[in-house]
Amino acid sequence: MNVSFLDACWGKPVKRTPVWLMRQAGRYLPEYMQVRSKCTFLELCKTPELAAEVTIQPVDILGVDAAILFSDILTPVEPMGMKLDFVPGPVFENPVRTMSDVEALKIPDMEQDVPYVLETIKILRRELVNKVPLIGFGGAPFTLACYMVEGKGSKDFSQIKKMMYKAPDIYAALMEKVTAMDMEYLNAQIKAGAEAIQIFDTWGGILSPADYERYVLLYTARLINGLNRTNTPIIHFVKGAGTMLDVVKKAGGDVMGLDWHVSLSEARDRLGSNMAVQGNLDPTVLFGSKEIIEREVKRVLRENDGRPGHIFNLGHGILPTVPPENAIFMVECVHRFSEK
Amino acid sequence: MNVSFLDACWGKPVKRTPVWLMRQAGRYLPEYMQVRSKCTFLELCKTPELAAEVTIQPVDILGVDAAILFSDILTPVEPMGMKLDFVPGPVFENPVRTMSDVEALKIPDMEQDVPYVLETIKILRRELVNKVPLIGFGGAPFTLACYMVEGKGSKDFSQIKKMMYKAPDIYAALMEKVTAMDMEYLNAQIKAGAEAIQIFDTWGGILSPADYERYVLLYTARLINGLNRTNTPIIHFVKGAGTMLDVVKKAGGDVMGLDWHVSLSEARDRLGSNMAVQGNLDPTVLFGSKEIIEREVKRVLRENDGRPGHIFNLGHGILPTVPPENAIFMVECVHRFSEK
Repeated sequence: MNVSFLDACWGKPVKRTPVWLMRQAGRYLPEYMQVRSKCTFLELCKTPELAAEVTIQPVDILGVDAAILFSDILTPVEPMGMKLDFVPGPVFENPVRTMSDVEALKIPDMEQDVPYVLETIKILRRELVNKVPLIGFGGAPFTLACYMVEGKGSKDFSQIKKMMYKAPDIYAALMEKVTAMDMEYLNAQIKAGAEAIQIFDTWGGILSPADYERYVLLYTARLINGLNRTNTPIIHFVKGAGTMLDVVKKAGGDVMGLDWHVSLSEARDRLGSNMAVQGNLDPTVLFGSKEIIEREVKRVLRENDGRPGHIFNLGHGILPTVPPENAIFMVECVHRFSEK
Repeated sequence: MNVSFLDACWGKPVKRTPVWLMRQAGRYLPEYMQVRSKCTFLELCKTPELAAEVTIQPVDILGVDAAILFSDILTPVEPMGMKLDFVPGPVFENPVRTMSDVEALKIPDMEQDVPYVLETIKILRRELVNKVPLIGFGGAPFTLACYMVEGKGSKDFSQIKKMMYKAPDIYAALMEKVTAMDMEYLNAQIKAGAEAIQIFDTWGGILSPADYERYVLLYTARLINGLNRTNTPIIHFVKGAGTMLDVVKKAGGDVMGLDWHVSLSEARDRLGSNMAVQGNLDPTVLFGSKEIIEREVKRVLRENDGRPGHIFNLGHGILPTVPPENAIFMVECVHRFSEK
């Protein structure tokens, strides 16, 4: 069993820097597209054998040091009573806007309402034995709330911010409920066998540091604190948070996920030695030549400067049109240039 | 004449903090919509009497301390040989992709090719006499190049980044040409009467700090250095640059524009006392109640902590659906709470 990923999460020294890629199971892989051609995206998420198959693909093809459950952050939101569709971005037909909308949301019974997620994890643990650890994941409460209130992607997130500023009671009630759901969902993943958990706060960075601290921190901290995390490291990834890492750190967790907008060197200095980091190559570097990929992998490793507790990753999901051979080459570079 | 804006640009003490709003002439104002209903957006930019009229509207309606020329950053790019349309976002029919595309671009003769911009400035200087200073503006070379290469807005900017990484010679040739154009354009604005210049690098923040330094800094620095700026302060606004202000500062300029993702307090500490700042309220705060607007204005002023060289602004353009009375109230709050 390759445990370099887990060791790095705990800040332990490793022989070579572990690496995986956000969205490593995805559209850039022809092998994924073949599975995906037989069903919709949601069907793929809900069919354990297929979800497990695409989860494992990048482990074999890229040689990464961790697998991440194939699913979507909105999977557990649907059984709260939200009608979810992908067109191809996620859309909720019935966005949450009023207190009665919030009251109507239910907290799913995970075994009954998202059995496919837990079943996928169980299959994966069997299939990944002697290979690499399995990462489970969920959206941070704020990011889930953004989707639930906006109803879809947004440029300026004016609906959720209007709710925060003009109806703080509705906002708080929604965040309470989403946080409670999230805690049960991620603990169910841990119970089913997830060996690490990544919390994606894709939209946490749309706020000022002051607003993040006022409106988000409390809920993410409560979530992380409520996870059965003794043997399960928690990776907290807030996209666009490079200017407020000191605030985000207060939420807890073992590893801070970093996008490419902040230098890894500065991030590590600010976070201190008791927190591991994950990141942070610009995903578009994988469109570059081998020379560029090599140069940029070396730069990120140099910015980390050999400090223990570094998991190499992209700063955001791999892009659908990246040539797979470039991703393979990147993984090779990380291993080669970090070898002790 | 109210010179508090210019004084603050030069870092001089002022009686009360000057304030203006990015996109203050715009769709949220019914008075603007009335003018705009008679013509297209590009026609409005190209008709000096109308452009001057909408430029002055917010000075009278909001009571701001500066006017900003009504125009678009792509105005001088069109006569380089690019076919520009707004649908409503900007679209170039013929994006730049090859070296011969770059070679085909010409550097416009500003007096001949964008006479309406210079004429608008001249009208405005007459009409704003004894009122407030006039800010001219342009896009930073990198942001203009992004639009020229992508051909439209983008989520991941993969075309310009592919060019940077895979065809650095084409990228460099394009940036050389755009920078030369930009210098002539902004110097023509200064000659026509612009009393300050804001350089908008809307997309500079899509890059890692290392890539900004490698691919952008040189050109913006050359541009700023080439402006006739002895009596004309230069405001440099790179959206999303809160994690790399030390790098961006090297480009020069008198005032650093800040978005709301960085605390003003931290930004000032990092930039040092020889650089003024402009910003940085989250534009969505203007959807909030009066209590929220007041609280947030006070917070930004408190983060500045009375240091000279602060121009109050939003961290990005005012949103089209903001109630004008909220913008008026914000301006009042800035003046009231900063009064010495």
